[in-house]
Amino acid sequence: MDYVYGPGKNHLFVPGPVNIPEPVLRAMNRNNEDYRSPAIPAMTKTLLEDVKKIFKTTTGTPFLIPTTGTGAWESALTNTLSPGDRTVSFLIGQFSLLWIDQQQRLNFNVDVIESEWGQGANLDILAEKLAADHSHSIKAICIVHNETATGVTNNLATVRKLLDHYRHPALLLVDGVSSICALDFRMDEWGVDVALTGSQKALSLPTGLGIVCASPKALEASKSAKSVRVFFDWNDYLKFYKLGTFWPYTPSIQLLYGLRAALDLIFEEGLDNVIARHTRMGKATRLAVEAWGLKNCTQREEWYSDTVTAVLVPPYIDSAEIVKRAWKRYNMSLGLGLNKVAGKVFRIGHLGNLNELQLLGCLAGVEMILKDVGYPVKLGSGVAAACAYLQNNIPMIPSRI
Amino acid sequence: MDYVYGPGKNHLFVPGPVNIPEPVLRAMNRNNEDYRSPAIPAMTKTLLEDVKKIFKTTTGTPFLIPTTGTGAWESALTNTLSPGDRTVSFLIGQFSLLWIDQQQRLNFNVDVIESEWGQGANLDILAEKLAADHSHSIKAICIVHNETATGVTNNLATVRKLLDHYRHPALLLVDGVSSICALDFRMDEWGVDVALTGSQKALSLPTGLGIVCASPKALEASKSAKSVRVFFDWNDYLKFYKLGTFWPYTPSIQLLYGLRAALDLIFEEGLDNVIARHTRMGKATRLAVEAWGLKNCTQREEWYSDTVTAVLVPPYIDSAEIVKRAWKRYNMSLGLGLNKVAGKVFRIGHLGNLNELQLLGCLAGVEMILKDVGYPVKLGSGVAAACAYLQNNIPMIPSRI
Amino acid sequence: MDYVYGPGKNHLFVPGPVNIPEPVLRAMNRNNEDYRSPAIPAMTKTLLEDVKKIFKTTTGTPFLIPTTGTGAWESALTNTLSPGDRTVSFLIGQFSLLWIDQQQRLNFNVDVIESEWGQGANLDILAEKLAADHSHSIKAICIVHNETATGVTNNLATVRKLLDHYRHPALLLVDGVSSICALDFRMDEWGVDVALTGSQKALSLPTGLGIVCASPKALEASKSAKSVRVFFDWNDYLKFYKLGTFWPYTPSIQLLYGLRAALDLIFEEGLDNVIARHTRMGKATRLAVEAWGLKNCTQREEWYSDTVTAVLVPPYIDSAEIVKRAWKRYNMSLGLGLNKVAGKVFRIGHLGNLNELQLLGCLAGVEMILKDVGYPVKLGSGVAAACAYLQNNIPMIPSRI
Amino acid sequence: MDYVYGPGKNHLFVPGPVNIPEPVLRAMNRNNEDYRSPAIPAMTKTLLEDVKKIFKTTTGTPFLIPTTGTGAWESALTNTLSPGDRTVSFLIGQFSLLWIDQQQRLNFNVDVIESEWGQGANLDILAEKLAADHSHSIKAICIVHNETATGVTNNLATVRKLLDHYRHPALLLVDGVSSICALDFRMDEWGVDVALTGSQKALSLPTGLGIVCASPKALEASKSAKSVRVFFDWNDYLKFYKLGTFWPYTPSIQLLYGLRAALDLIFEEGLDNVIARHTRMGKATRLAVEAWGLKNCTQREEWYSDTVTAVLVPPYIDSAEIVKRAWKRYNMSLGLGLNKVAGKVFRIGHLGNLNELQLLGCLAGVEMILKDVGYPVKLGSGVAAACAYLQNNIPMIPSRI
Repeated sequence: MDYVYGPGKNHLFVPGPVNIPEPVLRAMNRNNEDYRSPAIPAMTKTLLEDVKKIFKTTTGTPFLIPTTGTGAWESALTNTLSPGDRTVSFLIGQFSLLWIDQQQRLNFNVDVIESEWGQGANLDILAEKLAADHSHSIKAICIVHNETATGVTNNLATVRKLLDHYRHPALLLVDGVSSICALDFRMDEWGVDVALTGSQKALSLPTGLGIVCASPKALEASKSAKSVRVFFDWNDYLKFYKLGTFWPYTPSIQLLYGLRAALDLIFEEGLDNVIARHTRMGKATRLAVEAWGLKNCTQREEWYSDTVTAVLVPPYIDSAEIVKRAWKRYNMSLGLGLNKVAGKVFRIGHLGNLNELQLLGCLAGVEMILKDVGYPVKLGSGVAAACAYLQNNIPMIPSRI
Repeated sequence: MDYVYGPGKNHLFVPGPVNIPEPVLRAMNRNNEDYRSPAIPAMTKTLLEDVKKIFKTTTGTPFLIPTTGTGAWESALTNTLSPGDRTVSFLIGQFSLLWIDQQQRLNFNVDVIESEWGQGANLDILAEKLAADHSHSIKAICIVHNETATGVTNNLATVRKLLDHYRHPALLLVDGVSSICALDFRMDEWGVDVALTGSQKALSLPTGLGIVCASPKALEASKSAKSVRVFFDWNDYLKFYKLGTFWPYTPSIQLLYGLRAALDLIFEEGLDNVIARHTRMGKATRLAVEAWGLKNCTQREEWYSDTVTAVLVPPYIDSAEIVKRAWKRYNMSLGLGLNKVAGKVFRIGHLGNLNELQLLGCLAGVEMILKDVGYPVKLGSGVAAACAYLQNNIPMIPSRI
Repeated sequence: MDYVYGPGKNHLFVPGPVNIPEPVLRAMNRNNEDYRSPAIPAMTKTLLEDVKKIFKTTTGTPFLIPTTGTGAWESALTNTLSPGDRTVSFLIGQFSLLWIDQQQRLNFNVDVIESEWGQGANLDILAEKLAADHSHSIKAICIVHNETATGVTNNLATVRKLLDHYRHPALLLVDGVSSICALDFRMDEWGVDVALTGSQKALSLPTGLGIVCASPKALEASKSAKSVRVFFDWNDYLKFYKLGTFWPYTPSIQLLYGLRAALDLIFEEGLDNVIARHTRMGKATRLAVEAWGLKNCTQREEWYSDTVTAVLVPPYIDSAEIVKRAWKRYNMSLGLGLNKVAGKVFRIGHLGNLNELQLLGCLAGVEMILKDVGYPVKLGSGVAAACAYLQNNIPMIPSRI
Repeated sequence: MDYVYGPGKNHLFVPGPVNIPEPVLRAMNRNNEDYRSPAIPAMTKTLLEDVKKIFKTTTGTPFLIPTTGTGAWESALTNTLSPGDRTVSFLIGQFSLLWIDQQQRLNFNVDVIESEWGQGANLDILAEKLAADHSHSIKAICIVHNETATGVTNNLATVRKLLDHYRHPALLLVDGVSSICALDFRMDEWGVDVALTGSQKALSLPTGLGIVCASPKALEASKSAKSVRVFFDWNDYLKFYKLGTFWPYTPSIQLLYGLRAALDLIFEEGLDNVIARHTRMGKATRLAVEAWGLKNCTQREEWYSDTVTAVLVPPYIDSAEIVKRAWKRYNMSLGLGLNKVAGKVFRIGHLGNLNELQLLGCLAGVEMILKDVGYPVKLGSGVAAACAYLQNNIPMIPSRI
C-alpha cells in the first residue's frame, strides 16, 4: 500500500509537514523501548533543557505533548484561562480563524479583531482596547505569530510594547507553529506567556509533538484556571517532572529520539544561522514572485513571512489547478489556498530543513506550471531573480570549510 | 545521544509499548508528505474501513486521533457525556484508577465499584446498581477490558447481558488498550458503545494514535453531550469524513503508513490466529509462574489475562529490584508494580508482535533474575513447563508450509 | 561519525552512486536473514527473471555478483577469454582506459583504438580491423556503451552491424555501467554477448552488485576460456542455479530486497518511460550548457550522453574549483574531471531515480557557482532554456492521473 | 515482495549472516553519497585505523574489499603467491574444503592435510612437513581459524610455534571469517601474515565487505607474487592510500557508515568483553547439548568453537528436518549440516551482536524441535544447564550500572 509512485524525490513545499532530514529519519528508525527505563528520563531531561533554546527562554517551562498544533492551542488556553474569560484574538487567516473557533468552543469570551486576509494583526485596535480596559477584563491576547494561510508575520515586539505601555496584565499567548525555529522568536524578551509549535514544522520532524512553553506567570495562572482539562493539564506533567520520570502517559520513543537529533542539527548549524537561512529563502521566493509579475497575498512588506509565501494568481486562473498540476506532473507539493483565499492563492512553504537549491528547483517548477495554466510567465525569470540575490548571500557551509 | 548500549536485542516485555515488527518499521521509514494530496485520503479510507475489523464491528465509526490512550479515554467520555452525568466505573488497578480520576476531573458523577487489586470488576454490584436504577440515572458503564496493572481481564459479555437483562440504556464504554487486537473483543456482539486502544499496544506501532470506535448509539449521544471538547471532538472528524479529506488537523504520515502495514500483517496472520497466539503466550507464562512456585496477582482463572501477567513476589523480595536487574544485567525490560502493588509484583507483557521463542528467552531470564534476588527457583523449571505446553500447541506458520 | 552536516538534502549529481529512492531504502532497512531458507531462493528466482528485462534479453543468463563494476568487468573477461587472446578495445576516456588496463593485466593482447577524449569509439578503424582479420584472431570487442568520464555514448547497433557485415565471430562485451536501465540498450537485438552494470548506477541502489548478463554464445565460450578465475567464475553460479539454491557464496540480503524494490519501481514507471525520462534530462542539461555559452566535452551530437554531461570550462577556470564550491557552499555533489580532462571539465550526472525539478535545482546551482568562479554567466539562462524544453515535454505521472 | 511472514522476530542462529544491531541498521539507512567528497576519505581513514584493532595488529595493513569471504580468500592468495607455489592446507570441513578447492583452481600446489570432520587441523603432520621441508618449498600455510561447518577452532598459536621452531619462512594465511571479533585472535602476536573476515559475521553487518589484513611480510610478498589479479590487487588500494582518496573503485557508502557504527559498538562494549561474551555463549550452548544427551560434532574440548556449535543427531533423525521445522514452526533459522555431515548435524550459530536471553530462547526452541522429531529430550533440560552456568557468569552491562 504505497502511494502512487512518481520518479525522483517528492518536492515538498507545503508549509508543513516539511522535509525530515536524514539524520532525524535515522534516529527514529528504531524499535519501541520501555519509557520507564533509566534511559528515557535521562534523554528527556536534555530535551526539556534544550528545547527552551529554540524559544529563546531561560525562565519558561516546556511541555512535550503527544498531540498536534490544535492540541497545543488547547493546552495553552485551558491551562491559563477560565470559562467566560475575555480574550483578544486577531482574525487574519485560516489558522487564526480556527484558533478563535476553538476559543469560542472552549467558552471564552473572544473579542475578535478582524483584518482583511493578507494583512497582519491590527495593533492599533489592540492599543485602543488595552487603553479602554481599565478593569483588566482582558485576560489574554491570543496571537498567531505567523499566519500560515496568508504568509503574514505579526510583530510580537510591538504587542509586548503595547501591553507594557498600558501596564496591562493580560497573558500573551502565541501560536508559533510556523515561526518558532525559523523566524526570530524571543519568548523572554517579548514577555510571551505561552508559546507553542508543532514537531512537523520548522523542527522538521513527523507530526506528533505539540511543544508548549509556559512563562512563570502562565504557570501561576494555571493554578487558578478553571477550564476543564485532563489530557492537556500541565499539572500532570509538573508532577512527573518533580518525580524525575517526566511522563504522565506514554511518549513516542521515536519522536523523542527524533527531537534529540533535530535539536542537535539545529544547534550544529546554529539557531541564528537557521533563522538567517529562512530569511534568505523568504527573500528569494518573494523576488521570484515579483519577477513573475504576480502579487504576494501579504499586503505590506512589514508582514512578509520568511516561512511561507502565499502567491495571488490572476482571476482567470484557479490556484487549485496549480497545486494539482504540481502534484500530477512535477511530483511537487504546494499549499492550497484555504477558505477565503481558496482558488486565489497557492502557497510555497519554505521552512524547515531545506536549502536554496531545493527552493530553486521548486521555483523553476512553479514557472512551468504557471505556463501550463496559461499565465504568460517568462520561464527562468523567477529563478534568475532568486539566484541573483542568493548568489551574493549564501554563506559557505561552516562545517565544510 | 543514544541510550546506554547493551549487546544484542533488548528483550521488551513491558505491557506496552511493545516490539514493532520490521515491516512496520520499514513502512514508517519515510519523509513527510502533504496530507492534502490525493494519496493520503485514499489510504485513510482503507484504514478506517480495515480498522473496524479489529474491533469486530461493522456498524461502528472509527477515529484515528493523534494522541495516547489517555486522550482516547477523554475522547470517549467527552463526546458521549455531559458534566454531572453519572457513570459506573470499576476500580481494580492503576489504569482503571487513572480513568476514574479522569472521569472525576471531567466533572462526571462517578459511581466507583472497587475491588481488591488482582480481582476483576465486581459485576454483582453492577447488577444491583442497574436493578436499582429505575430512573436510568446511570448514563455510562466505564470498564477497562484488561487491567494492565494487575493482569485482569473483565468479562464484557456478562456486562452486556446485565444491561440487556435490566433493559438499561446506559452506554457501555470500554478501555481496550491492552486487549484489542490481542484478546477476543467483539464490539458489535457485546453492544459496546465506545471502544478504544492505543497504537503502541497490540497493534505494535509507536505511540501516537488513539484509536476510538463509536457505535451508532454513541454517535447519537455525541449530538447532545455537553462536555466541552475541541481537539477530541468527533464532530470535526465527521465533517471531514463527509468532505472525503478525513483530517481536521495534521496526521502523522508515518503512523498512517505504519498502521496500514500493521493491519496488513494482522490480516495476513489472521486476526483469530493473532488472538490464539496471545492465548498461548498467556497460558505458557502462567504455567511458568506456577512452576516457579510463585503466585499470579490475578486471583481467579476467569480473570487471567493473555496479554500481561503480574507476578507476586515473596515479601522478602522487592519486585522493583527484579525489574532493575532485568535491565542492567539481562538487557530485558519488565513491567514494574504500580501504586498499590509497587514492590509486590513485576509484570511480563506478552502482547503484540511476539512469538513463543521470544517469550521463552524472557522466562529463562526471569528465572535467572529470581535466583539473583535470592528466590529459590529451580532454573529451567518455568521454561520446561511452558515448553511442555507450547510444543503441543504451536501451529506451523501457515504461510511457510 | 556523521559526515559534515549541511542543511537540506544533498544534491547528488555525480554520475553514480546516484540517489536511492525511498521505497528502495525502506526495502533494505532490515536485519540479515538466512540465505538458505526457502524465502531467498524464491525471491532470487524472480530477480534473475526480471533483471533480464532491463538488458532487453530473453536468452541471456544473468549473474548477480557481490562486487563492483570493476569486478563485473573481470567477470565478463575471465569467463569468456583465455590469456593471450586478442581483444579490440576503445580508449575514449577514463573508464575505457581502466578497462583496457584490466585487460592488459589479465594478460590479454589488447588492440587499442584510441580517440580523442570527447569523441566516441572510432568504428571506422574497427571496421578496418575486422575486415583485415581473416583468421579471426580477434576474440572479443570490448566497448563501453557510455563513457562516464566524457559523457559519450557509443553506437552499439553499428558495432553489431559491422560484426555481422564481416561475419566476424568475435564476442561483443559491453560495459553498460552508466547506460543500462537509463539509455536504450538491447542485448538480444544487438547481439551483445556480455553486458554488465553496477547496482549504484541507473538501478539507484547502493554499490555492491555487479550485474552481468551472458548470451548463450558467451556461456559456451566460458566452457573453454582458460583465464584463471574462482570468485568470478560463472560456473559456480550455474551449479547452484541448477540446485535451485542460487548462491555459491553469501549474498547481501539487503541488496536482494533492494534490487527487488528497484525493479518494481522501474516496471511500475515502465522501462521505456524511464529511458524517455533520461532522454529529457540529457536534452535539458545540454540546452542549459548551451545557454551558458559553454561547450559540451562530447564533440558530436551523435555521441551525446543522456546520463552524464561533461561540461568544458574556459581555460582560466579550474573545474575542480567548481566541484569544490558545489560541495562547500551549495551542498551539491558534481563530478570531477578525471585524468586527461582534470581541471577542464566538470560533470553533471543525470541518471537514476531523478526528476526534472531536481535537475533544475542543480542547474540553478551550477549557474551560481559559475558566477562564483568568475565566469560571466547570465543567471537563470540555463534554467530558462531547460524549462522551455521541459515544460513542453514532461508527461503527467501516469499513476497520478 | 516480502518473504513469507511469521509473527515476532526471526530467531537468526545460523553462523552468519548474523543479527545486525539497530544502531548499525540506523547508520546504514541513508542515501548514496559522492565517495570523492572530502567526507568519505576522512571517514575511511578512521575505519582503516580502527579495523586493525579487531585483528590485534599495529603493523598490518587492512583492505576493505567490496566482496565476500570467498573473494577475501582470493585476495589473500593471489596477492602473496605465484602459480605452482606449494601451500599446506587443512581439510577439516566444508569451508576449509572450499578454500582448498579455490587454491587448486588458482593453480597452487596444495598439500592437503586431512582430518576427520569434527577434528581440528592435524598439527603433528604439519610439524612433520615443516621438519622435512629443508628447501622451504612450502610457501604458505593456509588455515581456517574456525571451521564453521563443524564448529572447530584451530590453535593458531601452536602453528606459529611450529613455524618458529623449524625456522620456516612460510607465510601464515588465516581465514578468520567466523572467528575475528568473536574469538581471541592475535595477528601480531601469532605472526599471521594475512588474516581475513567478512562483514556479515562477528562484525554483525550485512554481507558485502571482505576485510583483509596483511603483515609487512605479506605486503613484501605481494611485490613478487605472480598470480594474476586486478579486482583483488592490493596494489591498487595502496596507490590510493598514498593519494589519500583510498578507493580504487566505488565503495558502498552504506557499509562504510555501517562499519563505523559496528566498530563503535564493539569498542564501547570492549573487544575483550565481546570475546568473553562469545566464550559464555559457546559454553552455555555446549552445556545444553550435553544436557540433551547429544554429542557435539567437535571431537575434543580443545577444538570447541565459541561461535558455532554443530550438534550431532541420532542416526534415526534427519538433521535437515530440524532446520526445516525451526523455520516453519518456530520462526528460527538454524544452520544445516553441510556436505559430509549433511543430515547428521545441525548448527547453532552464536556469534555477533547477540545476548544470552536470545540464545536461551533458541535453546528452548531446539528442545521443542527435538521433541517434534522424536528425540526423547527432557524439555527444559538444556535451558536449565545453560542458565545454571550463565546466572553465575553474566556480568552487569557496564554502561548501565
